[in-house]
Amino acid sequence: MLVTDLINVRYLSGFSGSNGALLVFADDREAVLATDGRYRTQAAQQAPDLEVAIERAVGRYLAGRAATDGVHKLGFESHVVTVDGLDALQAAAEEGNTELVRASGTVETLREVKDDGELALLRLACEAADAALNDLVERGGLRPGRTERQVSRDLEALMLDHGADGISFETIVAAGANSAIPHHRPTDAVLAAGDFVKIDFGALVAGYHSDMTRTFVLERADDWQREIYALVAEAQKAGREALRPGADLREVDAAARQLIADAGYGENFGHGLGHGVGLQIHEAPGIGATSTGTLLAGSVVTVEPGVYLPGRGGVRIEDTLAVPVETRWAASSHAAAHPPELLTRFPKELAILT
Amino acid sequence: MLVTDLINVRYLSGFSGSNGALLVFADDREAVLATDGRYRTQAAQQAPDLEVAIERAVGRYLAGRAATDGVHKLGFESHVVTVDGLDALQAAAEEGNTELVRASGTVETLREVKDDGELALLRLACEAADAALNDLVERGGLRPGRTERQVSRDLEALMLDHGADGISFETIVAAGANSAIPHHRPTDAVLAAGDFVKIDFGALVAGYHSDMTRTFVLERADDWQREIYALVAEAQKAGREALRPGADLREVDAAARQLIADAGYGENFGHGLGHGVGLQIHEAPGIGATSTGTLLAGSVVTVEPGVYLPGRGGVRIEDTLAVPVETRWAASSHAAAHPPELLTRFPKELAILT
Repeated sequence: MLVTDLINVRYLSGFSGSNGALLVFADDREAVLATDGRYRTQAAQQAPDLEVAIERAVGRYLAGRAATDGVHKLGFESHVVTVDGLDALQAAAEEGNTELVRASGTVETLREVKDDGELALLRLACEAADAALNDLVERGGLRPGRTERQVSRDLEALMLDHGADGISFETIVAAGANSAIPHHRPTDAVLAAGDFVKIDFGALVAGYHSDMTRTFVLERADDWQREIYALVAEAQKAGREALRPGADLREVDAAARQLIADAGYGENFGHGLGHGVGLQIHEAPGIGATSTGTLLAGSVVTVEPGVYLPGRGGVRIEDTLAVPVETRWAASSHAAAHPPELLTRFPKELAILT
Repeated sequence: MLVTDLINVRYLSGFSGSNGALLVFADDREAVLATDGRYRTQAAQQAPDLEVAIERAVGRYLAGRAATDGVHKLGFESHVVTVDGLDALQAAAEEGNTELVRASGTVETLREVKDDGELALLRLACEAADAALNDLVERGGLRPGRTERQVSRDLEALMLDHGADGISFETIVAAGANSAIPHHRPTDAVLAAGDFVKIDFGALVAGYHSDMTRTFVLERADDWQREIYALVAEAQKAGREALRPGADLREVDAAARQLIADAGYGENFGHGLGHGVGLQIHEAPGIGATSTGTLLAGSVVTVEPGVYLPGRGGVRIEDTLAVPVETRWAASSHAAAHPPELLTRFPKELAILT
């Protein structure tokens, strides 16, 4: 199989450069990593056990290599390779009797289950985010008069202070009515007493992402704010408790969504319940009302219900969790006895910051 | 034509969301922008003159729309659409008598020439970078004892202080022997007296990127450092002076490269001379030894020769420049009389920071 998606190349080989492809054989022949001259040293360090070929057109080179090596069928990532890109692969494959066959999403499926090393990095990323938010709140970073942008910059700097290599994605800080916008970008809007402040952010550690959302209230909370906060917190708890290996993904979504719908806010929760997290901030599985398939033991996912009231404000509460692998015991017993591992540990009680 | 590349969608429509596609007609029918429900408000604001269709599968929807509208030939971006993606487009196009035809790089070619509005944003991005580096140096941010990572973080924060929306790309700060690595990522390596410190960075303003590299020496400069700095500076000047509308791209590259080769350092300059800059940090044209084509009036490009001595250190000097559009006068006269506009204005003389 020819792997050209860079995240998949990194997952399989350890190589993290911006140009690379991997040829993996079905028999015991050693895999070949191709990259260009800029990455000669890095490739040797990150993938010491692989043969490294230095070529600029990495996919075309490896397709030609497969052809001259007598490969009969060469899988390629048809969800990644472009129409023009396939032409180049085919021209190279025709140097032999190599047939290109679609192999869509093969590596992404492998990536869904995390091994111990991956889980350790995901824990570190979540810890950096927890510690940063803790510092931000303790130092009074969330108070009337500050702007969304200032809060965002502080939080990102604090993640780096706590060992993050970078940020997982552009930090969302949404105050007041902006908190009703699910994916608001920070502006110069000023935080005010009585505002919801919704913060969705994550840290990056050695390529692995964390993802967490917390929603605060500044100085005082109105009844409507308490109501939707309690509802979202309850739904989020139900979603977390539904994370069992083998659970139907739609049922996990429904566990949280039904509570919100029953309270009359179904129209105000317009996105899926969660998604896988790993080398990408959004990866398999998607957990939503139209998802298919089941939750795998060892997968790492978010649970992030929200209720958004346009023009007023919104609440989202999101954790990153690891689905347990102890299926032998969990299969016959109550889910609560074998809960998923909570990776983002910052408290979720309604915090009225004064 | 169906435009699915998000940068191209933004260029043509103004819409900057993370899911969108555009259907553009050859006749006077109005273009249609498709995006999903998250971006309903944003699309209406950013593309007020376009019809906005709310759909999740934006490409497939617009291909179907073209089919039902009786379009005979529908161009698609074959360098962007994946093999699986084309299947979906074809299924939708078969609802009519619509033939999908390849239209690779069409919009990218348009993007090569910048209009006045784009040039204004590129100037702002370059100014933010200039001001940030100036502050960093004036405040003593480059001195022995600091780490590459600290310098990088300071510089990125200063760009935001000076009005940048974000950074153009991961800032490169490379000290001592690390400066010999063309694309080094900042580490905890400590800056020391006698080190080269190479800094390659850029600011992002309203989607437009700046790109600049400067190389400093800390406290004292050895003869070998003065020699390669002077050589790179001379080559960079020759490259800038070769930026005439209509110039052969290979000749622009050669203007700088020949000087470095003549001095015996040809093997130590292993990358191209420059690249276009705009909505992407690297876009058309590429300026290198194997480039084809000519430089267009109104394009914005970098000129960035370097000499890297493995294990010792390296120098790169890079500016972003706009190729002038006054071809009527420039065609018949000496290039120096109509120089390109220098957008990155931080000084380039060897600075020995004490």
